[in-house]
Amino acid sequence: MKALVHDGNGIITLTERPRPRIIEPTDAIVRVTLSSICTSDLHIIHGAVPRALPNTVLGHEFVGVVEEVGGDVRGFAPGDRVAVNVETFCGQCFFCKRGHVNNCEQGGWELGCRIDGCQAEYTRVPLAEQGLTRIPDHVTDEQALLLGDILATGYFGAEIAEIEPGDTVAVIGAGPVGLCAMACARLYGAAQVVALDIDAARLAVAKREGLADVTINPAGPNPAAAAKGAELAVRDLTEGRGADAVIECAGGTGTFEMAWRVARPNAVVSVMALYEQNQVLPLPLMYGKNLVFKTGGVDAHCLDRVMNLIAAGRLDVSFLITHRFPLDDIEEAYRFFAAHEDGCLKVAITPPRG
Amino acid sequence: MKALVHDGNGIITLTERPRPRIIEPTDAIVRVTLSSICTSDLHIIHGAVPRALPNTVLGHEFVGVVEEVGGDVRGFAPGDRVAVNVETFCGQCFFCKRGHVNNCEQGGWELGCRIDGCQAEYTRVPLAEQGLTRIPDHVTDEQALLLGDILATGYFGAEIAEIEPGDTVAVIGAGPVGLCAMACARLYGAAQVVALDIDAARLAVAKREGLADVTINPAGPNPAAAAKGAELAVRDLTEGRGADAVIECAGGTGTFEMAWRVARPNAVVSVMALYEQNQVLPLPLMYGKNLVFKTGGVDAHCLDRVMNLIAAGRLDVSFLITHRFPLDDIEEAYRFFAAHEDGCLKVAITPPRG
Amino acid sequence: MKALVHDGNGIITLTERPRPRIIEPTDAIVRVTLSSICTSDLHIIHGAVPRALPNTVLGHEFVGVVEEVGGDVRGFAPGDRVAVNVETFCGQCFFCKRGHVNNCEQGGWELGCRIDGCQAEYTRVPLAEQGLTRIPDHVTDEQALLLGDILATGYFGAEIAEIEPGDTVAVIGAGPVGLCAMACARLYGAAQVVALDIDAARLAVAKREGLADVTINPAGPNPAAAAKGAELAVRDLTEGRGADAVIECAGGTGTFEMAWRVARPNAVVSVMALYEQNQVLPLPLMYGKNLVFKTGGVDAHCLDRVMNLIAAGRLDVSFLITHRFPLDDIEEAYRFFAAHEDGCLKVAITPPRG
Amino acid sequence: MKALVHDGNGIITLTERPRPRIIEPTDAIVRVTLSSICTSDLHIIHGAVPRALPNTVLGHEFVGVVEEVGGDVRGFAPGDRVAVNVETFCGQCFFCKRGHVNNCEQGGWELGCRIDGCQAEYTRVPLAEQGLTRIPDHVTDEQALLLGDILATGYFGAEIAEIEPGDTVAVIGAGPVGLCAMACARLYGAAQVVALDIDAARLAVAKREGLADVTINPAGPNPAAAAKGAELAVRDLTEGRGADAVIECAGGTGTFEMAWRVARPNAVVSVMALYEQNQVLPLPLMYGKNLVFKTGGVDAHCLDRVMNLIAAGRLDVSFLITHRFPLDDIEEAYRFFAAHEDGCLKVAITPPRG
Repeated sequence: MKALVHDGNGIITLTERPRPRIIEPTDAIVRVTLSSICTSDLHIIHGAVPRALPNTVLGHEFVGVVEEVGGDVRGFAPGDRVAVNVETFCGQCFFCKRGHVNNCEQGGWELGCRIDGCQAEYTRVPLAEQGLTRIPDHVTDEQALLLGDILATGYFGAEIAEIEPGDTVAVIGAGPVGLCAMACARLYGAAQVVALDIDAARLAVAKREGLADVTINPAGPNPAAAAKGAELAVRDLTEGRGADAVIECAGGTGTFEMAWRVARPNAVVSVMALYEQNQVLPLPLMYGKNLVFKTGGVDAHCLDRVMNLIAAGRLDVSFLITHRFPLDDIEEAYRFFAAHEDGCLKVAITPPRG
Repeated sequence: MKALVHDGNGIITLTERPRPRIIEPTDAIVRVTLSSICTSDLHIIHGAVPRALPNTVLGHEFVGVVEEVGGDVRGFAPGDRVAVNVETFCGQCFFCKRGHVNNCEQGGWELGCRIDGCQAEYTRVPLAEQGLTRIPDHVTDEQALLLGDILATGYFGAEIAEIEPGDTVAVIGAGPVGLCAMACARLYGAAQVVALDIDAARLAVAKREGLADVTINPAGPNPAAAAKGAELAVRDLTEGRGADAVIECAGGTGTFEMAWRVARPNAVVSVMALYEQNQVLPLPLMYGKNLVFKTGGVDAHCLDRVMNLIAAGRLDVSFLITHRFPLDDIEEAYRFFAAHEDGCLKVAITPPRG
Repeated sequence: MKALVHDGNGIITLTERPRPRIIEPTDAIVRVTLSSICTSDLHIIHGAVPRALPNTVLGHEFVGVVEEVGGDVRGFAPGDRVAVNVETFCGQCFFCKRGHVNNCEQGGWELGCRIDGCQAEYTRVPLAEQGLTRIPDHVTDEQALLLGDILATGYFGAEIAEIEPGDTVAVIGAGPVGLCAMACARLYGAAQVVALDIDAARLAVAKREGLADVTINPAGPNPAAAAKGAELAVRDLTEGRGADAVIECAGGTGTFEMAWRVARPNAVVSVMALYEQNQVLPLPLMYGKNLVFKTGGVDAHCLDRVMNLIAAGRLDVSFLITHRFPLDDIEEAYRFFAAHEDGCLKVAITPPRG
Repeated sequence: MKALVHDGNGIITLTERPRPRIIEPTDAIVRVTLSSICTSDLHIIHGAVPRALPNTVLGHEFVGVVEEVGGDVRGFAPGDRVAVNVETFCGQCFFCKRGHVNNCEQGGWELGCRIDGCQAEYTRVPLAEQGLTRIPDHVTDEQALLLGDILATGYFGAEIAEIEPGDTVAVIGAGPVGLCAMACARLYGAAQVVALDIDAARLAVAKREGLADVTINPAGPNPAAAAKGAELAVRDLTEGRGADAVIECAGGTGTFEMAWRVARPNAVVSVMALYEQNQVLPLPLMYGKNLVFKTGGVDAHCLDRVMNLIAAGRLDVSFLITHRFPLDDIEEAYRFFAAHEDGCLKVAITPPRG
């Protein structure tokens, strides 16, 4: 079958690979009907993900049809349409029992990172009972495509932010994850969602899709000035207090400072972004502000809930899919996605031609 | 001034009363611009509220304009538009510190029950700093009218039901409180709201206003049969499990049984209705189902949050106000409201003519 | 092997049965080194447990040594000392994911109820990875014996009672489960534990073991009078308010009423007892008291936590084992236990002689 | 009266000041019967507390007898023995309603910082109804002395650490606050408390008082090495995982790093220490570990609970008072306390001689 492989030195190649087979009785084989490219795929290519292994098929965000299941897989059968969880987890270890599936003792982020992923025609999904979520008939592949990774991340970012109805929620970054976080903040009753980004086009999407009530483009001569400007702007919206909850999805220069600056005292700052630099935590300055920082890495233990919301028509982020490429053209799709070309938010990779 | 007084023996009379004056430095005097009639007013007239005192001006659901404040009232001044909380509470006692303002050591339900209420031209509001919520300029009196009682109750019912995004929430009773509860269940991310009532017209309102996804009219030869029928119908909507959360707002014959029957194991049953009869709790039958019953009486400690939602356009129950009467005709308004005449859900009482 | 079998008609017989073998790859076979008799065994014999199947080996509270494990059981090997969970659960279904293992879609109370239990020489434990808890070397069999059922129940009763440090906790019933609940209430920082029972000897145990700070023997001409007397006594201990949390472990006549009477407004009443009668919930009388009732059936999802506490010397209920019998004499042990003979709280059943 | 005043330039002088009088009707005047010196007093003297005002009477940790109350103070009368809260708060503003009294809109840390404190014969306590906690007759002044500041801080540190029964809790710093945190961690059911400090004498106190089960003196050639050594030592105690909860009370060089290193994935790190330096948050290294950082400044909203525990004999940190000085000798007491002379943990300042 065709598959996109990363050689560990920054080169990706669409190549021929054998079709995966059941190895463990808890595995399933899924025929990929739609996959996507994620910013973390770019991190792998750039060598910024230490756990990634070379010569692995990339990709971890996809939907498909179950082709075959191992002998211990209950509840799924060939022909079932499924969305796949970015995380592999057992459901039974110390961490899984507490809902912390991201730290599963025999899993975590495996697909497309340490074992072959989904930018291919077929994928082997280990621990399939935990990793698969059934797609109801009336939900389209595009509506379900992002469930297993960035939508799960946006949901998790909102979930741990302890939002209460009536709150003002600030989301730093209006890229794909940030936009998902905004949609999910609404599910917790946010009265006012404030989007902050330096990309006017992405802020416009946040507005157009009804995800943000207010958008702020925090310009400044330097990141610290921009962060302070953002702080003043958010205070103006909140009777001088700051945001009740903050979800940081940008991971850019100065965005961590912006996140704690726009927060009111006692707010939760939910840090979903993957940073490439250490950050400064100015505890003397913060003393008494009593902020709570929740550092992330999605715990995607809740995908049945999120699928319920998609199925009920209450959560639809398929608008993020701005461009589509067949698997044959996936190398070009990477270039296009990385360049944000033509306002690209997410690309969908369809099965190979012919 | 004109005021509606209840004599303690079931007779209400619109009569002349002296205008209230500041007694404590924590009091405010509010000029009533809009008030309402509540089912609990009917309970008082029927003698079913032991704490109610005779010869009291009725009414506890209203908005108005601050006319005067006592010396210790900060944050409010004459001319401020305000919604008034049904509960009088200090904010400082053992119960208030824990958010249980309904059990405030020097308060609870006072207005229109033990002290003069709002079905009059002016009302004295004790402990006004806690009891008043400012109405933003762009929020109308009708949008704010129900905040202090039935909207607070619906909100509380949803708040304590521990709804999580994606849940199915069943609401028993599609009257004014039930409809408020449905609107608030949505704020907690309910994917599917199921309304149960035997009044088809009220179910139709729940559908028309987009509050319920599914409506069920649980007919049966007797209440127990209806409750069992409702159980089957809700299981059909939830893969056989039952509702994740139940809010019981009806208080009719058999509706308590219906509430626990439609609940899935480990659900919260939030009991907001005021019952006139003892109920049976069949613990042997329920053993292992692990239901949680939260018995009510709103803790209206959260009205600033709810007002934020109204102001942001995310919560608008003004559609409940189906009819309007001037204070001069309030006796007729009571009759009309009690009879559900002309599909009446709530009446608004406007200031006297002339 | 020897095993105690119940015929479904109230007759128990120590008889010969074949030694159990692995059926599913998730099974383990455990050699029983110590077991106990539980009040729920008596309920089965009396025909009061509908889910119980006849001709089943009784018993569900035990410790032992792993004899053999199925091919899918990780983390346990022959020779391991283990305590066994009363509940059989998968860890992966809708309910298990939410911690509600008592409602596991493929489990619940199976051992000694629907499948052969532990009053025998060997037992087959299904879904062993979830059902077994390793016993550290320095913990004795007697310290671990009650972990899987009544200690888990007492812990669960305290856990869901939402106790906060400094609280007064009332426990209704100073039998084995009630005494476990008292020990566990302390783990949540209860400042004052109040034991209520009509058995003076059991109250004396609660005092002697340091589990209760205050004991109350609520005598009265009838159960309602006793409940009201208990209410006054508990108010005297709590500045007039009532207990902050209540754990009902008695299940006797009038004890449900006692439970809600001794509770302060907004308390949680954790109902652990298994009742044989329906109860009355006087909602009109309770209106505004805002009690929360959590109806039980232990969710024993937390046994690793509880074992940590035993291992650290912070929880030791082995004093409950007042009498010991070899398996050969288990019929006599049943009689002795049921009669509370000689102050019997719990019996331990040792392996057969010779 | 005699009072210790700080001039804003590092000089403290015991001097004569007029006795305070009631200014607001919510004030109380308290005659100081015992006060203490706190590390934060030293921070003020060193100029490290920006909000501190010069020429203020120092001190914020004390007990005394009510001398006089303003007209609006309910529940307290002259002659009442009271402990005083370090924080001044209204109980009614946005933050107080949410329990965040440290960020009260009209309060926060006032006493001994911005208004005259307790190292004097008398103190004026604003908003006295919130700020005073009654001392039961059988509780001594020494048992109650630390309630309002460091005991409250240790309690808060444990409260927000989300400890569950059976957990391993690591406390960084075995000084007075750390020792209080250890005592309070126990109230939440910690099975294993691990104390980390470089002062062997203080670790010995933690052991002697039964507060810590294990003590670790994390020596190393540099702070980073010590932090890594501590990580390994704590993993050895926790099956390789790290502590379930961490309370950082040291605020020294390298102790913030030690705090996150000893934490297991998904742990809460409760940061109670007041730092004089910014800290590094190495988010790339932490990615996926999902730590939660709660930055502090006690919210002392819970002192009635803590007093309940003292009164019940379940929390007694009076052993911390190692030395006593009359107010006349308070300058010497400061020197003695700052130097940790003679193993000094806390000093108690008694009323002036004669």
